[in-house]
Amino acid sequence: MKLKINNIAARLEALEETIIFKIITRAQYKKNPLIYQIGKSGFKNHPDKSLFGIRLLKQEELEAVFNRYSCPEERPFNTNLPKSERDFLPPESPLHIDELDKINLTEDILKSYLGLVDEIAEEGNDPSQYGSSIEHDVYALQAISERVHFGAFYVAETKYQSDPDLYQPLIDQKDEEGILIALTRAEVERRILERVREKTKLFQKDVNAQVRRIIDPALMAKFYEQTIIPLTKKGEVLYLLQRK
Amino acid sequence: MKLKINNIAARLEALEETIIFKIITRAQYKKNPLIYQIGKSGFKNHPDKSLFGIRLLKQEELEAVFNRYSCPEERPFNTNLPKSERDFLPPESPLHIDELDKINLTEDILKSYLGLVDEIAEEGNDPSQYGSSIEHDVYALQAISERVHFGAFYVAETKYQSDPDLYQPLIDQKDEEGILIALTRAEVERRILERVREKTKLFQKDVNAQVRRIIDPALMAKFYEQTIIPLTKKGEVLYLLQRK
Repeated sequence: MKLKINNIAARLEALEETIIFKIITRAQYKKNPLIYQIGKSGFKNHPDKSLFGIRLLKQEELEAVFNRYSCPEERPFNTNLPKSERDFLPPESPLHIDELDKINLTEDILKSYLGLVDEIAEEGNDPSQYGSSIEHDVYALQAISERVHFGAFYVAETKYQSDPDLYQPLIDQKDEEGILIALTRAEVERRILERVREKTKLFQKDVNAQVRRIIDPALMAKFYEQTIIPLTKKGEVLYLLQRK
Repeated sequence: MKLKINNIAARLEALEETIIFKIITRAQYKKNPLIYQIGKSGFKNHPDKSLFGIRLLKQEELEAVFNRYSCPEERPFNTNLPKSERDFLPPESPLHIDELDKINLTEDILKSYLGLVDEIAEEGNDPSQYGSSIEHDVYALQAISERVHFGAFYVAETKYQSDPDLYQPLIDQKDEEGILIALTRAEVERRILERVREKTKLFQKDVNAQVRRIIDPALMAKFYEQTIIPLTKKGEVLYLLQRK
């Protein structure tokens, strides 16, 4: 199945708004560091998890029942999730990979995201906001994971299809560095960062700073620069090395 | 406990962004009418529900375990939800009501919201988007419900506290019409509609219409005018009639 780079790029661009909206929404609540502390959840049956960790697990167990993870770009943060109860025929995939779970960047995503929360949210614990904070953490993480894995799989496959003679020898030699150089588009990355900065600014332009917390657009662009783009490229390299 | 009208108004204003973000996100997917049809979910064990209905139920069952519905403004769309497994002491409430569930406007909210989706989303069914559509339906509905019930409870209580001599006789006479007139602020409503229109326009100002669906700001304002504001006021009247 032939992929079109314009369609892939459009989907990635459209996901930017969703990611920015969701991160801004999370930042309306305090940091609430207690929600990330293991053993402080108030759930007796999960002594080994934080309140956030339990919420992420329960949400993913629910999503698994709805077949979310049969979609290549939806990679879960947890393992051993239940099987779907829903009759569902997965659509024909243009991807050349036998096991999607071989590529899962959620551990890196989670680590960087928690650093971002620490930068953008206000200091303090407010128990009345714990539920909303973990809810929006999960939604932001899902949107970021979708973006990273969609890029990793589909951008890599598209680039391969457009120039197999370039990529196949590098893959055969397992030349990770060479693949990374071949697929890097510095000008595209620069444009994405500029766009993310402008969108974050625009979405908050007329916001009443008395009632909403304003997020520094440079921090959103930095998150793209240091996390979303490099992890997408890491995923692209992994995909191409697995490609068959 | 004394409520401050400025704090209440600030919270309502801050929720506008969240609602608009979530509705715009839902509108990125097609209408997908099949997801709302009973018996077409693909779940054998829920023949009496639509795919959307099952998702809403499962999400609320999950949220109930996290104690979402011990918060007054979080009223569920389903009944008979499980009890929380989490140790949790509800904070002292400034509300004068013995049973929160006596006021629940979710049925009205759901009906209007489905009409809104029909207006803003693109025609058609795309099975690859069913999961994302029902996911964002649920998130948008939760944000709308939070806004309506928060307004209903807290705005009504604040107005009562600011002028008990006006409201108490109307409550004693069960004068619904009189209460509605007493609590209506036409100028505030006009300002909210203007703000919602402007925010919806602004959030989409530089959006690439090739990759994102643009929502008519007038439709968002109309949803506030015909649904969110009247339902909030309906809830305010119900709250005052129940107040003790």
